[in-house]
Amino acid sequence: MTSQTGLQVPPISPHHVLERCRELVEPALREAVQGLHPWPRLMASFSLGWCDAEGTPGAFAGGKGMRQALAVVGAEAAGAPVGAGVAGAVAVELVHTFSLVHDDIMDRDERRRHGASAWKAFGTGPAVLAGDALFALAVETLAAADGGQSAAALRYLAGALRELVAGQADDLLFEARPWTGPDAVDLKEYEAMAAGKTGSLLGCALALGPVLAGASPLVVDALARAGRHLGAAFQAVDDLLGIWGDPGATGKPVHGDLLRGKKTLPVLTALATDSPAGRRLADLLGPAVPLDAAGARRAAGLVERAGGRDAALAQARRHAAAARECLYGVPLAPRATDELLALTGFLVERRL
Amino acid sequence: MTSQTGLQVPPISPHHVLERCRELVEPALREAVQGLHPWPRLMASFSLGWCDAEGTPGAFAGGKGMRQALAVVGAEAAGAPVGAGVAGAVAVELVHTFSLVHDDIMDRDERRRHGASAWKAFGTGPAVLAGDALFALAVETLAAADGGQSAAALRYLAGALRELVAGQADDLLFEARPWTGPDAVDLKEYEAMAAGKTGSLLGCALALGPVLAGASPLVVDALARAGRHLGAAFQAVDDLLGIWGDPGATGKPVHGDLLRGKKTLPVLTALATDSPAGRRLADLLGPAVPLDAAGARRAAGLVERAGGRDAALAQARRHAAAARECLYGVPLAPRATDELLALTGFLVERRL
Repeated sequence: MTSQTGLQVPPISPHHVLERCRELVEPALREAVQGLHPWPRLMASFSLGWCDAEGTPGAFAGGKGMRQALAVVGAEAAGAPVGAGVAGAVAVELVHTFSLVHDDIMDRDERRRHGASAWKAFGTGPAVLAGDALFALAVETLAAADGGQSAAALRYLAGALRELVAGQADDLLFEARPWTGPDAVDLKEYEAMAAGKTGSLLGCALALGPVLAGASPLVVDALARAGRHLGAAFQAVDDLLGIWGDPGATGKPVHGDLLRGKKTLPVLTALATDSPAGRRLADLLGPAVPLDAAGARRAAGLVERAGGRDAALAQARRHAAAARECLYGVPLAPRATDELLALTGFLVERRL
Repeated sequence: MTSQTGLQVPPISPHHVLERCRELVEPALREAVQGLHPWPRLMASFSLGWCDAEGTPGAFAGGKGMRQALAVVGAEAAGAPVGAGVAGAVAVELVHTFSLVHDDIMDRDERRRHGASAWKAFGTGPAVLAGDALFALAVETLAAADGGQSAAALRYLAGALRELVAGQADDLLFEARPWTGPDAVDLKEYEAMAAGKTGSLLGCALALGPVLAGASPLVVDALARAGRHLGAAFQAVDDLLGIWGDPGATGKPVHGDLLRGKKTLPVLTALATDSPAGRRLADLLGPAVPLDAAGARRAAGLVERAGGRDAALAQARRHAAAARECLYGVPLAPRATDELLALTGFLVERRL
C-alpha cells in the first residue's frame, strides 16, 4: 500500500486497526453499560460477548467490532477529536447490538456468534427489554456528547434507525414471498432492503464522528456514502458466507440461508439469469417447499453454475471500489484513509 | 375552582383539556407515523387506536392521551411556544406507545384497551419491530425540534428511558419473587419500580416542552417533580383498578392483578400491616400457588379489610397533593396551571 505522500509504507493490518479501535472504545462502552439496571446490564454484557449468561466474565464470541472501528477511523479521517470518534463508536456499537438482539427474536435465530442468541439464553421478553436498554443507552450517549453537535448526530442516528427498521420490515416480509412468479422478490427490492438493513448503520458509523465534530457537509456526506457502499459490499459477502461459508468460521450451518429460504443476492441473481441452471434453480425453489440438505446442496450448485456466486462477489468488489472512490473525492487525513481502505479490503475478502 | 386572579371561573373539564390537546397533537403525530415503512406504520397506527389490524381506519380504543395533554399544558404553563409543546407531546406519546407494545410482549398480555395487544394481532417479532419503529420515531421527532434545545430534550428523554427500562426490569423480576418471607418484595422496592415505570415518563411529559423552549431549570424541575408525583398517583390508582376496577371500563378481568400474582400497592400495603386480615392474606398468598377466582375474591376482601384499599387511595391523593405543591412553588401561566390541576384530579378520581 502506498500512502498519499507517495512514500512506501508497510501495509496496514486490518486486525491491528480493529484492535486499536477496540482498545479505544471498549472502556467507554463498558462504562456506559455499567450504568444500566443490573438485569439488562447482564443481558447487554452477554450480547456484547463480555460474559456468559450467568455473568461470568471472559472473552466470549463478540463481534469483530467493525462498526466501532469505522466510527473511530471515520472521525480521524475527518480530523475530528478522539472523543467524537469514541462517542460515535459507542453509540453505533450499542445500536448494532440492539438490532442483533431484536432481529434474532424476529428471525427466531437461536444462535449468534457460536453461542446462544439473547432470547434463547434469557427468554423473549427479557431480550426485548435488553434491546430497548441498549437502544436507549445509544441515544443517551449521543445526547451527552460534547461539542454542541449532539442534536445533529442524533438526527443522523434517527435517520439510520428509520432505514434500519424499514430494511428489517422488508426482510421479514420477503420471507413470506415466493422465489418466482409475479410476487417474487426482485433484485431492486433486495438492494433497497440491504441498503436499509446494513448500509444505513455503516454509513452512520463513518459519519457520526465527523458530524459530532462539526465537519463540513461535504466530508460527512462522502464518508456516509462510503459507509453505505461498504454496507452493500458487506451484505453481499454475508450472503455468500450464508451459503458457502465455513460453518466452523461462521457458526452457522452449511447452506443455512438456502435451508431457510432466505432471499439473498447470489440466489436472486442466479434466478434473474436466463440460463439453463437458473431455470432449473427456479424449478427447484418454485414449489415453496422447504429444501432438505440434499436440495440445498443442489440449489447451491445451480446458483454457482448460473453465475450467482461470481456475480455477488463482483458486486461486493464493485461496492468496495465505489467506497474507495468516495474517500478519494474529499480531503481526508491520509493515515486514517489508509486504515479505512484496509478495513474495506478486510470486509470484502474475509473468509472467502 | 378559583383562578390565581381570585375571580370565580367555571371549573375546567379535564375531558375538554384532553380533547383540546388531542386536536393539537394528533395531526403532528399522524404526520410522523406516516413517514414509517408501511408495515410498522400499520402496526403503529393500530397500537395508537387509529385503525384495526387490517388497517381499516376508525376510532378504536386508543389511550386517553393523558401524556400528550400533560406535555402540551406543561409547555403552556412554562410559557413555551405551542410548537415546543407539540413536539414534546408527539415524542412522549410515541415513547408511551412503544413501551406498551413491548411491555405487552414481556407481560404476555393478550388484551390492550378492549382489543388485542399488538403481539397478539401481528405476532411477537413484528410487534418488537413496531415498538422499535415508534421509539426511533420519538428520537427523530425530538432531534428535529426547532429552537436549539433538542439535545437537552433528548438527554431528558434518554434519562426517562433509562428509568423506564429499570422499572420494567424490576416489574418482571418481582413476578418471580414471593409475597412473604425474606425474599418478598417490600414497599420501598415497589415505589422505586413504580417511579421508574410510570413516574419517569410523566415527569418527562411535563418537562419536555419547557426544556425544548429553554425554560429556567427551576421551572423545568418543578414540572418534572409534579409529573413524577402524578405518576405515583396514577400507578396507585391503576393498582386499585387492577383489583376493583369495573371490567367493562378497564377492559381487564375482575381481580385480574390478583389472579396474575402481580405485586401491587394495595396488596403490599395490606401485607405490611400487622393485622388479622393481613396475616390471613399472607397465609393465602404465601404458598405461591396461583389463585383461582374464589381465592382472588377472598384475597381482595382481605386486602380491603387490612386497609390496603384505603391506604392506596390515600397514597394516590397524597401524591396528587404533592404534585399541586410543586406547581404552586414556581411562576407558571395560571390558565395552564388550572388545566394541569384539572388533569391531576382526573388522574386520581377516574372510575373509582
